[in-house]
Amino acid sequence: MNEQDIKGFFADEEDLIHDDYLFFTFWFETAEKPEHAVAELACELSTAQWKRPGIDEDYRPRHAAKVVHLEILSEARRPSFMTSFAKGDHFYRGLVRLAYPQINIGPRLPNLLTTVCGEGAFFCKAISAVKLVDIDFPASWLADFQGPRFGIEGLRGILDVYDRPIFLGVVKPNIGLDPKSFAGIAYESWIGGLDIAKDDEMLGDTTWSPLIRRCREVGRKRKEAEDLTGEKKIYLANITDEVDRLRELHDLAVREGANAVMVNAEPVGLSALRMLAKHASVPVVAHFAGIAPMTRLPYYGVSSIVLTKLQRLAGADLIIVPGFGGRMKTEEEEVLDTVDACTEPFGHCKRSLPTPGGSDWAGTLPLVSEKLRSHEFGFICGRGVFNHPMGPTAGAASLRQAWEAIVQRLPLADYAADHRELEVALEAFGGNGVSEPPKKAVAPAGAVPLVEFLSMVNR
Amino acid sequence: MNEQDIKGFFADEEDLIHDDYLFFTFWFETAEKPEHAVAELACELSTAQWKRPGIDEDYRPRHAAKVVHLEILSEARRPSFMTSFAKGDHFYRGLVRLAYPQINIGPRLPNLLTTVCGEGAFFCKAISAVKLVDIDFPASWLADFQGPRFGIEGLRGILDVYDRPIFLGVVKPNIGLDPKSFAGIAYESWIGGLDIAKDDEMLGDTTWSPLIRRCREVGRKRKEAEDLTGEKKIYLANITDEVDRLRELHDLAVREGANAVMVNAEPVGLSALRMLAKHASVPVVAHFAGIAPMTRLPYYGVSSIVLTKLQRLAGADLIIVPGFGGRMKTEEEEVLDTVDACTEPFGHCKRSLPTPGGSDWAGTLPLVSEKLRSHEFGFICGRGVFNHPMGPTAGAASLRQAWEAIVQRLPLADYAADHRELEVALEAFGGNGVSEPPKKAVAPAGAVPLVEFLSMVNR
Repeated sequence: MNEQDIKGFFADEEDLIHDDYLFFTFWFETAEKPEHAVAELACELSTAQWKRPGIDEDYRPRHAAKVVHLEILSEARRPSFMTSFAKGDHFYRGLVRLAYPQINIGPRLPNLLTTVCGEGAFFCKAISAVKLVDIDFPASWLADFQGPRFGIEGLRGILDVYDRPIFLGVVKPNIGLDPKSFAGIAYESWIGGLDIAKDDEMLGDTTWSPLIRRCREVGRKRKEAEDLTGEKKIYLANITDEVDRLRELHDLAVREGANAVMVNAEPVGLSALRMLAKHASVPVVAHFAGIAPMTRLPYYGVSSIVLTKLQRLAGADLIIVPGFGGRMKTEEEEVLDTVDACTEPFGHCKRSLPTPGGSDWAGTLPLVSEKLRSHEFGFICGRGVFNHPMGPTAGAASLRQAWEAIVQRLPLADYAADHRELEVALEAFGGNGVSEPPKKAVAPAGAVPLVEFLSMVNR
Repeated sequence: MNEQDIKGFFADEEDLIHDDYLFFTFWFETAEKPEHAVAELACELSTAQWKRPGIDEDYRPRHAAKVVHLEILSEARRPSFMTSFAKGDHFYRGLVRLAYPQINIGPRLPNLLTTVCGEGAFFCKAISAVKLVDIDFPASWLADFQGPRFGIEGLRGILDVYDRPIFLGVVKPNIGLDPKSFAGIAYESWIGGLDIAKDDEMLGDTTWSPLIRRCREVGRKRKEAEDLTGEKKIYLANITDEVDRLRELHDLAVREGANAVMVNAEPVGLSALRMLAKHASVPVVAHFAGIAPMTRLPYYGVSSIVLTKLQRLAGADLIIVPGFGGRMKTEEEEVLDTVDACTEPFGHCKRSLPTPGGSDWAGTLPLVSEKLRSHEFGFICGRGVFNHPMGPTAGAASLRQAWEAIVQRLPLADYAADHRELEVALEAFGGNGVSEPPKKAVAPAGAVPLVEFLSMVNR
C-alpha cells in the first residue's frame, strides 16, 4: 500500500456513526512503520482488495476497518518470540483501536471470531506478534443477542439467596464415581450449606456415569437436601457433548432432576453455547476449560476478557473464570477484568454471576471477597469441600462459617474457635492442603479494610 | 503426591490394551523433577483425586492417564516465556506420551478438547509451558466417527479430475461485492480453468450479499461455465454462521446452486463441523481461520497437526491449512505434517484433500507440488487469480498452464513464452505482486528433481 492507500484505513472516531461499528483493540508488535503496519492489519481484517481491477470504485468507506487510535507503548530490539518470520532489529509495541463495520459480519459469533482470530489478524505480514485485548460492542449490536436469561438476579431468585456469595462445589473424585455414590456426596455437601453441587468439567455423559442416571440420582438427593435444610439447592449438570446433542441433553437433564446445565464454552464453541442458552429453561453455566491455549501469553492470542464478554453475550448466566492464586497462572488484574466483564453495563444484557475458580477453600474467601469488593460472585471449591477431613458436609459448612466471620468482621482464626468445621479446614488446608492459597488468604478478615467492603454490600 | 502416588501414573505401553486408550503427546517445560511434573500432568488430566476419603479404593488403573514415554530434550536456565508463575532457575524441556483411557470421555470432540486443552494440561502447577503436539487415535476410537463422506476420491469424482491438483480460487474483492458481480467474477475464473470458485472465509450470509441470492446467482453461472467448458465446476459457499443455522444454510445453499459448503472450523467449533458433515449431501470444507491464536508458538498451545486431524475426524472432505511462504508464518515442516494429517492412514476414515493456502499463484505451483511430491492437493489462490492484470479468466488459465509446464518438465519461464496468461502472471507477481512467493518459487521447474515427483503421480 502506498501512503494514499493507507489513509483509506484511518478515520476519526468522532466522524463515524458509532452504532455502525464494533471496536477491536489489539496489542501488536511490528518491525515496520507502525502506521503502515496497523493499516495493513485493518486492510487484512476487512476488505483486503477494495476495488475490482479496472473499475473506479472504493469499498473502504463502507467496508474497511478503520484505525481510530494508535498508541506506541514501547520499543525493543528483539521480537516477543523468536521465529524465522519475525525479522527486524527494531520493534514497536503498541495498541491499536479499530472501528469495524458491523455489516461485514452481522450479529453472529462465528463470523466475529473469524474476523478477530482469523487470517487477517494472525497472518498479517507486518505484525510479528498480536493479541486481541478487547472488543467494545455498541448496544446496536448487542440488541440482536438475548444475553443471560436468568443472570445474577434470576440465579439468586432460584436459590432465594441474596446477601452473600453463591457457594458451588465440584463433586470429587471427579472421574470414576458411579451415579449413586456421586449423588450421596452431592447430598452431603448440600446439607452442609453448599448452594450448587456440580459436575466437574471433565465429567460428561459416560458409560460408567450416564447423564440420565446421574441426574436421576442427584435430582432425588437434591429434593431430600432441600427438604432437610429448607434451602433451595441446584444440581448443575455438565452436558458438554457434541453440539447436536446439547438441547436434547438439556431436556433430559432437566427432566431427570438437574436444575442448571454447564458447558465448556470453547470446546463446544461459543455459538453452541448461544444455541443452548436460547433453548434452556434453567440457568446455563459456561466453564473456562479450553481458553488457556490462547489467553495465557501477554503478547499473543486472545484475552480472557474478550472470551468472557462473548460468553455473557452468548447467554451464560454464570461464568467460571480462572481465579486468584498461583495455580491458576492468571494475573490478579486479569481476574478482576473478567469479573468486570460479567457485570459491567452491557447493553440490555443481564449480569452473569462471576465465579473465579481455582483451588479455593474457606481460607481464601476473605481475600477473594476483599478483592472483588462485593458479595456478587460465585465461590467454587473442589477438594476444599470434598476432601475436607470431616467430609463434604463439614467442607461446605466451613465455607458458610468463613462468610459469617467476614460479615461479623472477625478473623477466620477467631471465628474458628467456636466452629469446628472451619477450624479443621484451616488446619488441613492452611498449609499445603489444597494447592497453595493466595498470599494473605488466611490473613484474618479483621486485618483488611472490610468496613468499606461491607458497606458496599447490597442487602 | 509422594513417590508411591506418582508410580500410579506410569505404565508400560506394552502392558496396556491399546484399543482402550488415546495417546496424547505434549511438549512440556518444568522447573521440577520431570517424572514428578508429568505424573502431576497425568493426574490433573484424569482422576485428580483417585479415591474417596476413608474408602480403600484406587481409580487409577481404570481411569488415570498414564505416562508411557518421557524424553528430556533440553535444559535451560530460563522459562520459555516469563510470567510471575514460571518460577525456577533450571528448566527441563521434553516430550511426554500419555495413554488416556477412552472411557473417561467417549467418542466426543468437545470432551476430548476439554481434556487436552483444559484445566488439567494448561493449569498444571508443575508445568511452566506446554503444547499439545499430537494425538494418536486407535481404530477403536475412530470407528465411532464418520470421517469425510467424499474424501479425495469423492471430490475428484464430482469434478472428473484425476491427474492433477484441484484448482481453487477465492473470489476477490472478498468483502463488498454484490451477488451478481460476484457470480460474474466466479464465472470468469471457471472458464479460465478453475475447478472450485469459493467464498472468502470472511464472507458469510450478509445483508449486502445474502447467501440465498449469492448461491442463486453463482449457481446459475456455474452451470453456464460447465456448459461452456465441458468441465464440472464447484461453487463452494461459506456457510460459517451460528451453529443452529448450519444445517438449514447447507440446505439452502445446495438448493440454490452451491455444490460444496465451507465452515471455519474453530469459529463454529469442531463439533459443529461434525454435525454439518453428518448432515451434508455435498463435500464439506474446513478452513483454518481461528487456529493461529493457539498454534503459532513452538512452546505453547496446540499444534496445527492435532487440529487438522480433528477436522478430518469431524468429516471435512477438504482441509485448507496454512501453506508455504513467509506470509503464512508456518514452518515448512509443519505444513507438511498437516498435509500428512489429511492423507495418512486413519482407521476407516477417508483422506481429506490437503489444501495449503496462502498467497499462492501460478509461480508457486512448481515449488508446492515439489514439496508435496504428489498431485493430491488443492491449490488455492486469491489475488493470484482475481487480481491478474488480464482478469480472472487469465488468472485461472495461468494456473493450468503452470501445471502443464510441470507435467512437460519445462521451466515456467520457457512455457510462458507461448502462453500469454502465464507470462503476464510471472511479470505481475514474480516480484512483489502477490505478497512474496516462497523462495525458489519461480525457479524453473526443470531445476528441481521433478522426475522422481512425476513418477510418483498416480494416473
